[in-house]
Amino acid sequence: MSLSLPFVTQVGFDSGTLRPPHKRIQRRLSDMALMYADRAAAQRILAQEGDRLIYEYQFVELPSAEGQLPHGSTRILPGDIGGEYHMTKGHYHARREQGEVYFGLSGRGMLLLQTEQGATSALEMSAGSAAYVPPYWAHRTVNIGAEDFVFFSVWEARAGHDYASIERDGFRQLVVMRDGAPALAQNPKYA
Amino acid sequence: MSLSLPFVTQVGFDSGTLRPPHKRIQRRLSDMALMYADRAAAQRILAQEGDRLIYEYQFVELPSAEGQLPHGSTRILPGDIGGEYHMTKGHYHARREQGEVYFGLSGRGMLLLQTEQGATSALEMSAGSAAYVPPYWAHRTVNIGAEDFVFFSVWEARAGHDYASIERDGFRQLVVMRDGAPALAQNPKYA
Repeated sequence: MSLSLPFVTQVGFDSGTLRPPHKRIQRRLSDMALMYADRAAAQRILAQEGDRLIYEYQFVELPSAEGQLPHGSTRILPGDIGGEYHMTKGHYHARREQGEVYFGLSGRGMLLLQTEQGATSALEMSAGSAAYVPPYWAHRTVNIGAEDFVFFSVWEARAGHDYASIERDGFRQLVVMRDGAPALAQNPKYA
Repeated sequence: MSLSLPFVTQVGFDSGTLRPPHKRIQRRLSDMALMYADRAAAQRILAQEGDRLIYEYQFVELPSAEGQLPHGSTRILPGDIGGEYHMTKGHYHARREQGEVYFGLSGRGMLLLQTEQGATSALEMSAGSAAYVPPYWAHRTVNIGAEDFVFFSVWEARAGHDYASIERDGFRQLVVMRDGAPALAQNPKYA
């Protein structure tokens, strides 16, 4: 066995910035334009405004071995695409039996979850919210506030990402703006 | 398989209090009087002041299955026992290959780590510090500030606790007050 060394990473509550810097991935509208229910709105924004940053995540990379717990931050910018709030792509874990823990640092968010058997859940998060994504649940986070929504997360190194079914059909529930406030709506693709 | 349901727990940044309440464990001086280097000081405090609360932890209980990630908070009260700062008992994981992640919520702390092969590490933590306890490292936290030191932690459900060697010999490094500031000292038991 090769021994991993302990270390500390400083996480910005308002920015999600990691110090020292680690891996950083940005998702722009063009990376997920097909994932919003109103694809025409996504195309209009791309044409008129350019390629908007939707979210970024930063995380420490660790060996892909049992018991290693990678962790990092996600920052979702405020805004909407045709009335659907900015969100992450969302995924199942490739190893379905792996859970995940989110911890809210700033802003207001919604955690959408669903199982392959059709169960759904939606949980609100804010600073200090510890949200549990149990094994077998796909998960997506949504910014329902006017500021950045930032949270910290911890997962197991072998969990892996499975984006395929979500990229094709999205989540069963959408988080949309209704009279200026967030509300859940049914995704017509699952009708 | 039985499906676990998603849920949110609200964690107090200054208190570590979980809402809704979950499992809560308190450690008083009498639970660990033998773990401080100056046992006479521990006995003196017990006789003169009573059984001081050193720390408490609160956590969500989850099925002991692969991929489940229990999580919770620890609050260590400020103070010292004969010049050694208040600390947790500290432990190895029974399954040595399981890591853990700490996230600082308030106050100032030190994370002490060591391996069975004799490696040691000491990391400072404050609000926003994500500290990684890699597989195979015993870990103990210490309050080196004047306020409560509070942090959030995430571990794997099967990790388990192994207190035995730490209860017998303590950690190789002690965190002691020197001219009013924290400093590392060698534990004479490992001399």
